[in-house]
Amino acid sequence: MKFTINRSKFTKSLTDVLRAISSRTTIPVLTGVKMTIDQSGLMLSGSDSDISIEIFIPVSDEDNQLEVIKEGGIVLPARIFNEIVRKLSDEKLTIEVGDNFQTSITSAHAAFNINSIDVDNYPNFPVIDSNEVITLPTTLFKQVIQHTVIATSTQESRPILTGVNITIENGQLKAVATDSHRLSQRIIPITVPESLKDKSYKVIIPGKSLTELSKIIEDQDTIEMMVTQNQVLFKAENLYFYSRLLEGYYPDTNRLIPANSATELTINANDLLQATDRASLLSHEGKNNVIKLSISDNHVELSGNSPEIGTVEEELEYIEAKGDSLVISFNPDYLKDALRTFGHQNVIIGFTAPIRPFTVIPADDNTEISQSFIQLITPVRTY
Amino acid sequence: MKFTINRSKFTKSLTDVLRAISSRTTIPVLTGVKMTIDQSGLMLSGSDSDISIEIFIPVSDEDNQLEVIKEGGIVLPARIFNEIVRKLSDEKLTIEVGDNFQTSITSAHAAFNINSIDVDNYPNFPVIDSNEVITLPTTLFKQVIQHTVIATSTQESRPILTGVNITIENGQLKAVATDSHRLSQRIIPITVPESLKDKSYKVIIPGKSLTELSKIIEDQDTIEMMVTQNQVLFKAENLYFYSRLLEGYYPDTNRLIPANSATELTINANDLLQATDRASLLSHEGKNNVIKLSISDNHVELSGNSPEIGTVEEELEYIEAKGDSLVISFNPDYLKDALRTFGHQNVIIGFTAPIRPFTVIPADDNTEISQSFIQLITPVRTY
Repeated sequence: MKFTINRSKFTKSLTDVLRAISSRTTIPVLTGVKMTIDQSGLMLSGSDSDISIEIFIPVSDEDNQLEVIKEGGIVLPARIFNEIVRKLSDEKLTIEVGDNFQTSITSAHAAFNINSIDVDNYPNFPVIDSNEVITLPTTLFKQVIQHTVIATSTQESRPILTGVNITIENGQLKAVATDSHRLSQRIIPITVPESLKDKSYKVIIPGKSLTELSKIIEDQDTIEMMVTQNQVLFKAENLYFYSRLLEGYYPDTNRLIPANSATELTINANDLLQATDRASLLSHEGKNNVIKLSISDNHVELSGNSPEIGTVEEELEYIEAKGDSLVISFNPDYLKDALRTFGHQNVIIGFTAPIRPFTVIPADDNTEISQSFIQLITPVRTY
Repeated sequence: MKFTINRSKFTKSLTDVLRAISSRTTIPVLTGVKMTIDQSGLMLSGSDSDISIEIFIPVSDEDNQLEVIKEGGIVLPARIFNEIVRKLSDEKLTIEVGDNFQTSITSAHAAFNINSIDVDNYPNFPVIDSNEVITLPTTLFKQVIQHTVIATSTQESRPILTGVNITIENGQLKAVATDSHRLSQRIIPITVPESLKDKSYKVIIPGKSLTELSKIIEDQDTIEMMVTQNQVLFKAENLYFYSRLLEGYYPDTNRLIPANSATELTINANDLLQATDRASLLSHEGKNNVIKLSISDNHVELSGNSPEIGTVEEELEYIEAKGDSLVISFNPDYLKDALRTFGHQNVIIGFTAPIRPFTVIPADDNTEISQSFIQLITPVRTY
């Protein structure tokens, strides 16, 4: 195997593939990055068994300055290989596999000679041979990911909750995540080909996989999704992103979302985020990470305290408050995560009772928009 | 105590004072920041016993928008106070001490009420009542710090080597640091008043103090230095920076610097830095962090290796190589630290023998410049 390539272009693709590679794997060959090259181009592959990423660098794109001198393949130790490529000085990079799986990496006057692994030792990637291709709008799907992964669980005690539950049916994609303290749900319309109109798909994709995917996909118009029994493949131009699916039954979350509310507060999400951030300064210092929101006639106030440090109170500016007076306590970090997903939009916060979950939705006259996105937070009982 | 102030200006000064405040102190009151205010302005003080910093915010500078409503003083928990001030939203900040040493911090609608400490419990700062004031050129002195602190020891086994040995006599300031593996020496001319012409000063200032000082001093023309038995005070406009001095005898370093060399390499410091960085990629992976430099007729080469990972070789472009052929091994991190102090300048590296220390000095026809700055590195015996 021998080729020359533009170093910047190569570095960019290598960085993306590295997202799938972990140094803490039980399978040593997976600490490496696999490279295979033929006359059409160079394929970089990386995997940690859960996520596998393949990126193709085509000869046909002249920006890559990819010149294939000899076809072949090799596995290089990923971390050090990445450091080497980054620290070279020339824009042109030559990689050549010599005897005994020794790979030379040369650029300007620097010549590295790195112990590598036979490409035949690298495990095969799952074969996803499906003609059921679901096309997703990239920008909207990235939003879905950002809006829901915040509510996935990070604890392995209930593995199913570390995933996002995605259901595709009737021309829409619904994504739900919950760690049992809070929940995020986002619905987007998608275009399904005639042949799949009557089909439905239910998959639970690990939150970590979706986070990595959202970092790696460029803002191209669409991304293709293909599902098998236990794998999902997201395919974009020159990118193949595989993730393992979580197996098991996802809890029924529909019943968790209250149908109506006794108190409604309309407020700017960013203003409330800043005030919650200030109130959490003191709650973070204490044992109970809890702040209090009080809504009464013409007065909405957020407060927090830490017995050692002191107290904070802040009267909030809001757009509208209606319904019953209410005092409710909750973990400020859950509210902060939820509010961040709304940016500078106005939101409606709906409360049923001080001990019942409350919801945050976009304040929009269009009910299709306001009902397509919901964040739900369980309060904390403080008596 | 009560005052209002511009929040940005206050935050800037508070950040500077925080440099002296450690949360790992055995004296609880020192985790606080002291504030005292009178009609002339606000003084912020912080200390970790080794370093003490005082910053004065004068009423007379209108940018501060400082309005003194009631004179007084208080000690506030520094870390949380800083976080609070940063997260407030309004440009105006009001601080008022109430009953029982409760301090209210208000800005826009947010009101914090923080448990504070009686200002009388804060220890007094050292009194440096010297009329022997040495004036230092700020920019040059900051260079002296940056060029020498890299060679101070970080190990407490020989505490004296954690300091920079500064000697002021005959109209010049000489700074030397060594951790016994390498040495940095910088000499700058200074202007001494007639009354101090015959005096000489020898102080050993902790490297950490000098690093903090160099971060905090603005690029004003000059900074004043005053020395007592065991303290040094650096004084600039509105800033008082105190440091403890290290006590003991600093080793005689003059005899360590070789008088002449058998081999001399003239090379661009940044080019050599990049090549050393590449070579160190592999030496860092092995047990011995050592790279090798070979100088022979028309060929200068840097090489490194790690038995597990592989090898690297790089032929260097240089300006001039003269004298004996040489192969020498050394810790690349020492050379990298030394080369960084020269920026993009050309340097002359002088070697005596493979087992003798080598020197890096600026390549400058003006011997006063080339002899005012020297970095020395001890090689590693590899047989």
